[in-house]
Amino acid sequence: MNKHLLGLEETSEEEIRQILATAFSFKEVLSRPIPKVPTLRGKTIVNLFFEPSTRTRISFELAEKRLSADTITFSSSGSSVSKGETLRDTARNIEAMKIDMVVLRHNSAGAAHFLARCVDSIIINAGDGQHEHPTQALLDMMTLQERAGDLRGLKVAIIGDILHSRVARSNIHGLKKLGARVAICGPKTLIPREAEQWDIPVFHRLDDAIQWADVLNILRIQLERQKTALFPSLREYASQFGVTRQRLLRAKKDVIIMHPGPINRGIELENDLADSEFSIILDQVTNGVAVRMAVLYLKSGGRLEAEQRS
Amino acid sequence: MNKHLLGLEETSEEEIRQILATAFSFKEVLSRPIPKVPTLRGKTIVNLFFEPSTRTRISFELAEKRLSADTITFSSSGSSVSKGETLRDTARNIEAMKIDMVVLRHNSAGAAHFLARCVDSIIINAGDGQHEHPTQALLDMMTLQERAGDLRGLKVAIIGDILHSRVARSNIHGLKKLGARVAICGPKTLIPREAEQWDIPVFHRLDDAIQWADVLNILRIQLERQKTALFPSLREYASQFGVTRQRLLRAKKDVIIMHPGPINRGIELENDLADSEFSIILDQVTNGVAVRMAVLYLKSGGRLEAEQRS
Amino acid sequence: MNKHLLGLEETSEEEIRQILATAFSFKEVLSRPIPKVPTLRGKTIVNLFFEPSTRTRISFELAEKRLSADTITFSSSGSSVSKGETLRDTARNIEAMKIDMVVLRHNSAGAAHFLARCVDSIIINAGDGQHEHPTQALLDMMTLQERAGDLRGLKVAIIGDILHSRVARSNIHGLKKLGARVAICGPKTLIPREAEQWDIPVFHRLDDAIQWADVLNILRIQLERQKTALFPSLREYASQFGVTRQRLLRAKKDVIIMHPGPINRGIELENDLADSEFSIILDQVTNGVAVRMAVLYLKSGGRLEAEQRS
Repeated sequence: MNKHLLGLEETSEEEIRQILATAFSFKEVLSRPIPKVPTLRGKTIVNLFFEPSTRTRISFELAEKRLSADTITFSSSGSSVSKGETLRDTARNIEAMKIDMVVLRHNSAGAAHFLARCVDSIIINAGDGQHEHPTQALLDMMTLQERAGDLRGLKVAIIGDILHSRVARSNIHGLKKLGARVAICGPKTLIPREAEQWDIPVFHRLDDAIQWADVLNILRIQLERQKTALFPSLREYASQFGVTRQRLLRAKKDVIIMHPGPINRGIELENDLADSEFSIILDQVTNGVAVRMAVLYLKSGGRLEAEQRS
Repeated sequence: MNKHLLGLEETSEEEIRQILATAFSFKEVLSRPIPKVPTLRGKTIVNLFFEPSTRTRISFELAEKRLSADTITFSSSGSSVSKGETLRDTARNIEAMKIDMVVLRHNSAGAAHFLARCVDSIIINAGDGQHEHPTQALLDMMTLQERAGDLRGLKVAIIGDILHSRVARSNIHGLKKLGARVAICGPKTLIPREAEQWDIPVFHRLDDAIQWADVLNILRIQLERQKTALFPSLREYASQFGVTRQRLLRAKKDVIIMHPGPINRGIELENDLADSEFSIILDQVTNGVAVRMAVLYLKSGGRLEAEQRS
Repeated sequence: MNKHLLGLEETSEEEIRQILATAFSFKEVLSRPIPKVPTLRGKTIVNLFFEPSTRTRISFELAEKRLSADTITFSSSGSSVSKGETLRDTARNIEAMKIDMVVLRHNSAGAAHFLARCVDSIIINAGDGQHEHPTQALLDMMTLQERAGDLRGLKVAIIGDILHSRVARSNIHGLKKLGARVAICGPKTLIPREAEQWDIPVFHRLDDAIQWADVLNILRIQLERQKTALFPSLREYASQFGVTRQRLLRAKKDVIIMHPGPINRGIELENDLADSEFSIILDQVTNGVAVRMAVLYLKSGGRLEAEQRS
């Protein structure tokens, strides 16, 4: 097992399966009246969020508190980042304070790898630029397993802005390792060149992706990118790539709908469909806490046996 | 008992009395060497503050920690609110993470009600727009009871910017339910139209309010509103509605002075008077923690009996 | 012993020695598998940071959590400071909430003293304007003791922007009390007038300071001050006052290198030298947590005996 969780590209199938199995067992803990275990008592985890985040940050903090860790959370505003300290110096200082784990979100691809090279603390990547967001992909896979059973042969189409999406990259790596089949779908301007090397189907028409898929993992269109004119207009995007109930009906197809959030309702996903029987979006959120508990637990030296934890 | 605490308009006299009685009993806990009870151990409370706050936020956090809850606090800056997520999606995500209670401050009237309609978690309103701020009114009433005994027949004049004040609205609802008599006093431009339906005296001269009242609850003039020209100038406001020792002497009247803070010293309240024998302003702050403990305790299913808690 | 820790100017030699001895004993606690003691269980500490800080804030929070205190942290953005509340009212409110200790960072010199005068809570100065930063100087002295033994007669040169440095002021007071010899070195525009009263050597050439010193405590050049033209240019500053390995070699001198961080690598200190065998910079960071535990412990009424704490 790797010491850190930097990305799913370098995480083995075995380790992914171990994390998911542990997460299912933590999910049971979370259903208890007091959903808390003393596993990480006395351990200190620093959450360094150099990019805005509500959900991921709360989810990690919750996972840490439910494992009884001591947590310190840091958002970029008001930090000495504004004094120009380098990420490396920040990291080495944190390490000198004997912090056990660092959960890092950063806008530069490779930030978590960089940190892992220069400090001894355990690093958990909570999203680095457009590179990877491994805990998101793990919770996606956990939720799919819960709904669909074994992922082998399951066809998952990732829809939208693949170019800028760390969620897409982590999902592609993880799903392939578990034997799922992955495709991507989006306007040409939002499909990266590297997609050719991924050796997966690329669709430019949403209906084709729906025909092909068992699962649609629909990415958020980042409205702030629209100014760079990668797609003509939001209305145009919604009409071509917005997933609607009518499209599903037309395809005579039952698919599972996923979304990493936050949703632009009415743009990439029809408002009503997000809350429909097809959607497992809220299960993703629930499972996020269990997956993060599993990652923190295993990386801090825990083992899978349930009796270790209670 | 209501599941949530959204406002005092919909809270019964009986429930208000129960909260106050419980708060007095928690006040005793707070005087112990270790002012902490294990009541909410394992419960998770998320404080969502979408408006700036020092005092209310610290007071809630303190109440939560003294009940041994796990707390996660969120201020608007740096959150995915900036990514345009709706309050509803934020709420549903929080709920999916199995959070027991949400303490919400929001600049839209009705935000807490809205949340309560769309999630199962218990919602505590920590101030919604110009609508209600129920825990502030509860701590005001607790502090008045402590100083003046039974509130029945006690005459409380609320002075200042009634138009924009959620504190005024919550106090009016709560005080009337406990049998106090309430009046409001302020320049015509700062008295809302709805005041006619409140069926309470309205004064436009401060001296008249002082003559009438046993208690002056003096609201903060929000300096940032001055640009909308609802009153001529701060100096003018202070000379007409600023409460001073001289005015009280002229009225030959002992009154109790309250203020929800933060005070603009020298504007709505004379600097010296804020710290005088008339003032119970710091008692309000002290009691705020006890009241919030009581609300969190009762809403999470606790009962009044002291033995339940120690 | 003083009730507060406001500055080292008013802290006795005896108290400084007691804090350092306690810090060494806490350093041993920090090397245990579970680096946590129940000493401050049930105590509440509020960290009020009205200036940006990463390291100092994390270091204090960590010290507090390792003593099992309940902590509430406040950064200036989003607080009612923006509503214009005075520091005094903030303080009195905090006191009314029965908070045991306040750790204060503020951009006004004297802020911590002011707070100590108006409230009963114990105040720990975490940096006030250009006045003092006592825990930084204490950790500097602890780290020097660790490396060099008794400080009596040790020659410490503080290099850089003395004018604006609270770190320099606290170090000068503390080091002199422990019998060390202190000098300062920097361009004339960055040496304050009050330096004459400090009765210590003042160097304007770095090579002279290096010749003289056993230890160089190198201050951060605050890049944001460059606009006020107190020194010609960063390049010029670096060439005259930047500490480099070549300069040390030329001086045929082994010196201990310290820096309070964050480092401008390549400006006041050569990149490579910061991580060299001369540097005790990371030890400073490590010891910061132990020193702050010692201060919090002693100020809250703890005694030196190790058996009290375990």
